Amino acid sequence: MSRARPSLAELASGVRAGDRAVLSRAITLAESSRADDQELAQELLVEVMPETGRAVRLGMTGVPGAGKSTMIEALGMHVIGEGHRVAVLAVDPSSSRTGGSILGDKTRMQELSMAPEAYIRPTASSGVLGGVARRTREALLLCEAAGYDVVIVESVGVGQSEAILASLVDTLALLLVPGAGDELQGIKRGIMETADIVVVNKSDSGREKQAQLSAIDYRHALRLLPPATPGWKTPSMQASALEGTGVPELWQKVVEHRAHLESSGLFEERRTQQQLDWLRSLLDEAVLAEFAARPGMDAALEAARNDVVAGRATAPQAVARLLQINP
Amino acid sequence: MSRARPSLAELASGVRAGDRAVLSRAITLAESSRADDQELAQELLVEVMPETGRAVRLGMTGVPGAGKSTMIEALGMHVIGEGHRVAVLAVDPSSSRTGGSILGDKTRMQELSMAPEAYIRPTASSGVLGGVARRTREALLLCEAAGYDVVIVESVGVGQSEAILASLVDTLALLLVPGAGDELQGIKRGIMETADIVVVNKSDSGREKQAQLSAIDYRHALRLLPPATPGWKTPSMQASALEGTGVPELWQKVVEHRAHLESSGLFEERRTQQQLDWLRSLLDEAVLAEFAARPGMDAALEAARNDVVAGRATAPQAVARLLQINP
Repeated sequence: MSRARPSLAELASGVRAGDRAVLSRAITLAESSRADDQELAQELLVEVMPETGRAVRLGMTGVPGAGKSTMIEALGMHVIGEGHRVAVLAVDPSSSRTGGSILGDKTRMQELSMAPEAYIRPTASSGVLGGVARRTREALLLCEAAGYDVVIVESVGVGQSEAILASLVDTLALLLVPGAGDELQGIKRGIMETADIVVVNKSDSGREKQAQLSAIDYRHALRLLPPATPGWKTPSMQASALEGTGVPELWQKVVEHRAHLESSGLFEERRTQQQLDWLRSLLDEAVLAEFAARPGMDAALEAARNDVVAGRATAPQAVARLLQINP
Repeated sequence: MSRARPSLAELASGVRAGDRAVLSRAITLAESSRADDQELAQELLVEVMPETGRAVRLGMTGVPGAGKSTMIEALGMHVIGEGHRVAVLAVDPSSSRTGGSILGDKTRMQELSMAPEAYIRPTASSGVLGGVARRTREALLLCEAAGYDVVIVESVGVGQSEAILASLVDTLALLLVPGAGDELQGIKRGIMETADIVVVNKSDSGREKQAQLSAIDYRHALRLLPPATPGWKTPSMQASALEGTGVPELWQKVVEHRAHLESSGLFEERRTQQQLDWLRSLLDEAVLAEFAARPGMDAALEAARNDVVAGRATAPQAVARLLQINP
């Protein structure tokens, strides 16, 4: 692909062929705030839609320090060994301001990032178009069209992005660390409620006993909560991503959960809801863009901002006036 | 105030008089998705605007289990002792789905919730109108109009709501726990970058040494980062909300940070930015509501949803068609 603007046909065939450079370019177009980039990205999505929908869509969230990256690397290498191709994406609502983790994205998932069967999409840089869920969903669809049959979506931070994650994936895994006391109080019930699989990570040599006790504690806590997936008993298991223990068992649970979704009819229901969520977020963005493009809006918005800054109008008053500007 | 719909005059005088029932009613109106509630709430905000803007606006975030509620209670009781009136609000982007913490809202901040000088607003229940920042900002303004001169906004979870918090408050405190290793890796650099004060909580009897080492570790990490407030050296301090140690010192830092903001001219700048953020979120909501109210939109949206669910259209195709419906 040339560095010039690619055609729709070039993009579609490149994505279908699993060409990483083309895939990355396509995701960047979907993230772009330029109108022509958006148009091309949406045309591409319509074009490749028949090739989407086939992946295991797994969400991975966890408390800070729970070892999400290490676990995604271990799980990713495991499923590659099982013959799958893995894509890793991140949901990062804070990316408009912040950079990566302290360790930096480059040192994360070193082994997985070298594997030819894996595609890791770094967190979008600042300045991307609003709509975290929309962008991540489109990246996910493009990865599926490129032949990745396992897509792991990582949540950055804990507390809010679970709701976004839950709307993007079929199965949500929550990573915790041994030593339940504080975490159990600090973790919002809502996060436990959205999880389909709870994993106590860092069950490393010498800490197995503590991890086991924590896993039992969480099992008890889960009994008091409605399961995220009706009819599914959310497991609480131990693992050490560092030492590789519990990783095949985690993947087994992901497969079992997927089977449960399919046999119960919930799979179709969730995928339908995911499509509707996408419709909603795309529509909202388009409506706001249309409003911003009304004749005279730039100047009116500038005047409204000046009025608010100077105290000549409150924000509600300024909004009422802007709404008078008809297309 | 009667249980019937209150008038603008009743609301304004009740809020100005610091009547908690009226204040709660006003905040509920601002959170409502009903058009007439919104209109009344916005009229009220215009009316009481001159009484707003005087509080110390403090944001409190932290890792799960860091003891945010306990710290807010301890800090709240301390500032009441200094002659202030305190309001506590929460930013909870996940509230559309989740409930409160496992411990439950009722058992949190028991002492503070009984104090006549304090007003604690429980997290908004599900089904509230979109725009977490907008709702919390309006609740904050109403609390200021009701005479609360310290408003503490608590972030639920960690990772995303810091960006929202930072747009709402003047000073942001980040609560951490002793034992820095894991947290330092897990906490996003961006969260440290948004903090004006870092507090290692749970420096309780017997853990002082560990807390001290953690506070030093964070101090070193902070040196490598640009400060959230230009010209301000972000402190890393120890405290035990449980035992009350370090709490007066934390308040002292809040006061010093406020003084720094004012003397540097950054205070005006931040407040202006807060007003502009409010304008933006109000406008977006109003534009989307206007679009939804176009004649025939309900039926068209329903048809679009059906098409997407049945696979007759992709989400981008359905959106393109909906945008053809003119007002």
